[in-house]
Amino acid sequence: MAEPSIVGVDWGTSSLRTGLLGPDGAVLAERQSEDGILKVEGGAFAPVLRRELAALEAPPGLPIVLSGMITSRQGWHECPYLACPADAAALAGALQRVAEPELGPLHFVTGLEYTSPDGLPDVMRGEETQIIGQDDLAPGEIVVLPGTHSKWVTVEGGRIMRFRTWMTGEVFAVLRGHSILGRLMREAPTSHAPDPAGFDRGVSAGLEGQGLLGRLFSARTLPLTGRLAETAVADYLSGLLIGTEIAEAVAAERPTGVVVVGSDALARRYGQALDMAGLAHRLGRPQAAARGQWRIARAAGLVR
Amino acid sequence: MAEPSIVGVDWGTSSLRTGLLGPDGAVLAERQSEDGILKVEGGAFAPVLRRELAALEAPPGLPIVLSGMITSRQGWHECPYLACPADAAALAGALQRVAEPELGPLHFVTGLEYTSPDGLPDVMRGEETQIIGQDDLAPGEIVVLPGTHSKWVTVEGGRIMRFRTWMTGEVFAVLRGHSILGRLMREAPTSHAPDPAGFDRGVSAGLEGQGLLGRLFSARTLPLTGRLAETAVADYLSGLLIGTEIAEAVAAERPTGVVVVGSDALARRYGQALDMAGLAHRLGRPQAAARGQWRIARAAGLVR
Repeated sequence: MAEPSIVGVDWGTSSLRTGLLGPDGAVLAERQSEDGILKVEGGAFAPVLRRELAALEAPPGLPIVLSGMITSRQGWHECPYLACPADAAALAGALQRVAEPELGPLHFVTGLEYTSPDGLPDVMRGEETQIIGQDDLAPGEIVVLPGTHSKWVTVEGGRIMRFRTWMTGEVFAVLRGHSILGRLMREAPTSHAPDPAGFDRGVSAGLEGQGLLGRLFSARTLPLTGRLAETAVADYLSGLLIGTEIAEAVAAERPTGVVVVGSDALARRYGQALDMAGLAHRLGRPQAAARGQWRIARAAGLVR
Repeated sequence: MAEPSIVGVDWGTSSLRTGLLGPDGAVLAERQSEDGILKVEGGAFAPVLRRELAALEAPPGLPIVLSGMITSRQGWHECPYLACPADAAALAGALQRVAEPELGPLHFVTGLEYTSPDGLPDVMRGEETQIIGQDDLAPGEIVVLPGTHSKWVTVEGGRIMRFRTWMTGEVFAVLRGHSILGRLMREAPTSHAPDPAGFDRGVSAGLEGQGLLGRLFSARTLPLTGRLAETAVADYLSGLLIGTEIAEAVAAERPTGVVVVGSDALARRYGQALDMAGLAHRLGRPQAAARGQWRIARAAGLVR
């Protein structure tokens, strides 16, 4: 096994991923933990990271590059947002260095900020590193990071130019948990299987692009009038939201193709909806955060 | 005082309004109560109504016309939905008559159902009566009933042709109560004054018509980046939602003018947002439910 050059740490709200990265960026060894920043009490981040490094048998003194919510106010070291456009070199120049006894130098990756022409700001923290890890983008491809706060990101020549957040995942969660739309979902048996047809129907309604607020009520009226099974309502609503996100984003950005960063069930849902939208798409590079950490570290001269 | 011809009862989820209506539809006397259907236990609706009629000193035996959620499954007598288009005569023909000892004949007004060309059903219960009460509409005017589930209703020659529901009020409530957007609102002092400038800013963002899901996050990033006071966030979100509703509805219906049914603070907010959208608007007839009950009763031959 090659000697590791740096440690990459992707530390989010609910998860922690620590990797040893070789001189060419390969992930030589990796550990995952559920010790997200919200689970670490009293700001005791150093012992958690020491434990992970010991388990990985990391050589002492390696540069450590950290990205994700670990740089937020609730994290270890708050970093200001860097303005777009920004590439690996700009992020390297904005790394915040902190000396930490027994751990070696820490290098925190700042998040990004973009303000649209109509004056609405947007922010990301952690995704910038995953996007920098996508180093094989074709012109016109847009990077999509699905999730609680989905992000569509325009990259040109390795520079993150602009981005926008769709609150798709969080809107789904609050509507399911607290609105009248969720009542049927909450009453449906929790063990029922996913309903792909219900999902597709929701995507179609969302892709029409007539607007979400005046379409949401269909997630209640379709089952009430017997036109949708109660066990399909959650998938219908999920499809309606994802379809709406795609319709809005395509209208704003007119991408020639989409790169979906993620490989889980949610990424598969987006792939299905993008198929229905007739938009070319592919999965992004795996281990995107580690790849981005390595590229930023290399631009900063940290990779030996 | 003229002799009353009928009793009109507008019985909703959280309120009850009982009126004595004269032969020409005038409201001769009226009582309001907070005994909405959710507050009446064990289906004991008759004693509540008897109490209201006694307080109004209603002559015994008058026909009683009831509209609102009292005709839902949780109400007194569940009525099926009538399909659009429907006018006063159609609603009169669909009245459901129930004999009730000590009260006289009850006449329940059914709600309406409309299915859009793309197969999405919509329903209303109670609003149909308020709309029938708007008997002075000009061609091209659309009736808007703001609220938890806002409705935009197209009426032609006294017939309710089609309608759509925007879940504006409920989406506001769940986002404020349960999403990350609401965190700042929940932390802001509750006694702060309304922020008209914040509301206007939200309306502007919504009227751009770029879609709600990709704009919502601005209710977090604007205060986070110091561009909006924390005490203005709730009004901003309210404006964003109402502006989005108006943009979506105008794109769908292209009204020449809007009649807002309601006279409360919410109706004033809609008026302000409609001004910003450059759309002519006026307030609808007051006591709309009573007027609609009277018109339906007259079409049914119940008014002596």
